[in-house]
Amino acid sequence: MSKSRIDNPTLRERVMSAEQAATLIDSGSTIGMSGFTGSGYPKAVPLALAARIEAEHAAGNPFRVRIWTGASTGPELDGALAKADGIEFRLPYNSDPIAREKINRGEMEYFDMHLSQVAPMAWQGFLGPLDTAVIEVSGIRADGALIPSSSVGNNKTWLDRAEKVILEVNRWQNPALEGMHDIYYGTALPPHRVPIPLVRADDRIGEPYFRVDPDKIVAIVETEAPDRNLPFAAPDAAAHAIAGHLIEFFTHEVARGRLPASLLPLQSGVGNIANAVLTGLVDGPFSDMTSFTEVIQDGMLDLLDSGKLRMASATAFSLSPEAAARLNADLGRYRNAMILRPQEISNHPELIRRLGCLAMNGLIEADIYGNVNSTHVMGSRIQNGIGGSGDFARNAYVSIFMTPSTAKGGKISAIVPQASHVDHISQDVQVLVTEQGLADLRGLSPKQRATLIIERCAHPDYRPALADYYARARVGSYGQQSPSLPGEALSWHQRFMETGSMRF
Amino acid sequence: MSKSRIDNPTLRERVMSAEQAATLIDSGSTIGMSGFTGSGYPKAVPLALAARIEAEHAAGNPFRVRIWTGASTGPELDGALAKADGIEFRLPYNSDPIAREKINRGEMEYFDMHLSQVAPMAWQGFLGPLDTAVIEVSGIRADGALIPSSSVGNNKTWLDRAEKVILEVNRWQNPALEGMHDIYYGTALPPHRVPIPLVRADDRIGEPYFRVDPDKIVAIVETEAPDRNLPFAAPDAAAHAIAGHLIEFFTHEVARGRLPASLLPLQSGVGNIANAVLTGLVDGPFSDMTSFTEVIQDGMLDLLDSGKLRMASATAFSLSPEAAARLNADLGRYRNAMILRPQEISNHPELIRRLGCLAMNGLIEADIYGNVNSTHVMGSRIQNGIGGSGDFARNAYVSIFMTPSTAKGGKISAIVPQASHVDHISQDVQVLVTEQGLADLRGLSPKQRATLIIERCAHPDYRPALADYYARARVGSYGQQSPSLPGEALSWHQRFMETGSMRF
Repeated sequence: MSKSRIDNPTLRERVMSAEQAATLIDSGSTIGMSGFTGSGYPKAVPLALAARIEAEHAAGNPFRVRIWTGASTGPELDGALAKADGIEFRLPYNSDPIAREKINRGEMEYFDMHLSQVAPMAWQGFLGPLDTAVIEVSGIRADGALIPSSSVGNNKTWLDRAEKVILEVNRWQNPALEGMHDIYYGTALPPHRVPIPLVRADDRIGEPYFRVDPDKIVAIVETEAPDRNLPFAAPDAAAHAIAGHLIEFFTHEVARGRLPASLLPLQSGVGNIANAVLTGLVDGPFSDMTSFTEVIQDGMLDLLDSGKLRMASATAFSLSPEAAARLNADLGRYRNAMILRPQEISNHPELIRRLGCLAMNGLIEADIYGNVNSTHVMGSRIQNGIGGSGDFARNAYVSIFMTPSTAKGGKISAIVPQASHVDHISQDVQVLVTEQGLADLRGLSPKQRATLIIERCAHPDYRPALADYYARARVGSYGQQSPSLPGEALSWHQRFMETGSMRF
Repeated sequence: MSKSRIDNPTLRERVMSAEQAATLIDSGSTIGMSGFTGSGYPKAVPLALAARIEAEHAAGNPFRVRIWTGASTGPELDGALAKADGIEFRLPYNSDPIAREKINRGEMEYFDMHLSQVAPMAWQGFLGPLDTAVIEVSGIRADGALIPSSSVGNNKTWLDRAEKVILEVNRWQNPALEGMHDIYYGTALPPHRVPIPLVRADDRIGEPYFRVDPDKIVAIVETEAPDRNLPFAAPDAAAHAIAGHLIEFFTHEVARGRLPASLLPLQSGVGNIANAVLTGLVDGPFSDMTSFTEVIQDGMLDLLDSGKLRMASATAFSLSPEAAARLNADLGRYRNAMILRPQEISNHPELIRRLGCLAMNGLIEADIYGNVNSTHVMGSRIQNGIGGSGDFARNAYVSIFMTPSTAKGGKISAIVPQASHVDHISQDVQVLVTEQGLADLRGLSPKQRATLIIERCAHPDYRPALADYYARARVGSYGQQSPSLPGEALSWHQRFMETGSMRF
């Protein structure tokens, strides 16, 4: 057995089983959990809590809790608690399929938030008190400082705000994580906020450990359980085409003197296409790049290995099992090129605008004016959440959205007459890319944007119908700034709901 | 006659008539004009340019220009040039009725931008080169430094970026303006951006004058012409009710310890309701307040006079003729409590989030989930533009939107099943106020928001139809995160277009 990671003797006395720890959580309470993507979330206490909830329900007793996290987590947290019907309210992001189903059946309230705002809004107070923090760490030092795990998320805030703290010390986490984190303790509520002193993606402005009042720690659970991120699919032809268009665009911008040869700090959303773009940059002409983003995913390891990426700043790892093994085998080398920060820093508007990030995010659909829906299928069914895409898109140097031009085997067009839900307004969508092509929308009026998006981004199967809609809107619209036909604008979605396809 | 305001002898030699200056502008060129609301815009050269354009058109010669400004301007600029069919492309904001009509007939391209982004995007280069700056100043010092006028807007950037500069020196502007401005010269393109060193609304971080390369100045025109802002309507019962709800909300937040007793820096959109709220604060319980906003409007003078407002930071005055007279008569006293800054600073996300502004903006319509349309009537007809509302709403400490619950004598409901255009996503709309009541939406899921908005904000005439739509969407929607019926969601707008009323 690995030796204990708890070097503080007083705290070692608070070790107990996950089941014992779960009894310290009351029904109706609000719990701040660690976790950002499938990294660094608690893996034992939520399972034990789910079992306790199921037992209470079986005995006829109501038992539900409110769950706050960094972002998505793993099946042992969101999956298990949702399956137990244990989550009354959830923020700020979810990608668990069981929880998603509960939300979309109307059985669970979900507040889908800008990830940069979670910590400040928790401090602001209107979200209510935080009863318990359940935080995975990779160790506890002799002085009581906590060594963070594979994600930082909102842990600092949960530890500061919670009335009581339950720690999971996970021996599976690589001890070489120690020292990689940069926990900034300079945030405050207004009128006491000051500039955040970060001017380069690789600046360190904080401390490598979390502080916590030891008197608040009511339980420590030792675990040895892997993070669980999903594998990435091998990039398909569409992903390769999108990556190609994007690299051509960056090359053009560098040639025009509008981007430095090392580009600007890359932000990349989670997912297969984002990953394909990163992998594509391995063979691209840019070097000495940096990244200021939410998660370090597989493609970033490739970029680091290639020597093209100098460093990556994020709030979490989001690695496939294979890449996680690769990282863990060589963390001593990778760690000098990586910084993990609280998500209020990784996603802070002040820093994103200052650094001038190149933001690359996915979408569900965009309309002909470039308004983007990132969250709601057919306008109502939540997929995951807005996550950090709004933090980055609004403040980026260039805000790029990318998607295959169709989904569901061609039955859904990613370009529609009007977005059925809007997460990113046209002003925040500057470049739109599909496998069909890239539309550089910067500086254009809505009508100029529409022409370009239909021509460059729409799938040929849907292009004529979009052009026809737009041509008729140019005649029948109430005004001609952003021509639309309200009686027809969402008819593609209605048709999909009725027939299972947007096709005519 | 007033004596010349041009103290630099070399520059005094470049004085010419507006007509002569207008001949220096070519067809097809891009012109950066001063002006933010009806303040500080050039009043002679645009008129002379419009006359020249009309003459060219009469002679069968095409002549159109691209116009960039701070925000809206006055009739001598947007009105005259639009009337002459002289504007090919316009950014970033317009409220002129003639220009609005041209835009909505599809005869003029209009790029409606976040006001904080205009200057940085001009530097970024994709908007194309800036040929000529036409800037109103209130004087030129012996050393060639320019004394700004009654708005700052993007003047610093236009002066820096333009190939040639035409100045209007307006003797009508109060000489006591000198020293009130704070022109920050610390901006840069990434990777050279640094923290903006402003931590209080009343910090001065720049210089009182614009720098300009004297070799670029090709013409100086002397004028003596008043700013032309519209009078404010006396607040009606709805405005008073909205102000009352809002002051009650602030009082409650202070009592709960969630706002300091002096509140936080106020941002207030332009318009009668915003003005009524400011006036309402004169009798409110808060003192030692500050303002960090776009424009200083009538209500702020009242607040300053009352001693409740300590200082106001903005980028422009937007005063009724009566209030402008009041200000000018007593500028020596007011000036110590006022700072005018470039709009990239007055609206900077970094500063808005740091200061924790209380943002109060108007809207055209909001949907039951709190997505806000600030710009497009019936989804297509532009009213004015997004202006700075996005800069403030996204980054505010509390983002408040306010509107009467109906428009057009009750024929339009300001609360609709689905917004026909979205400028502010639900995450950025935290408090919604109508004369009916206030909905505090913070921390709520979409369904919780819908219930509250229908109950508290909708007009009783439309409440049953909204509740009915929502109840049916709770059954027939594709998903239940934000229930909607795409086939019906925009039917209220379609009905208005067909019948002139949203009523059934």
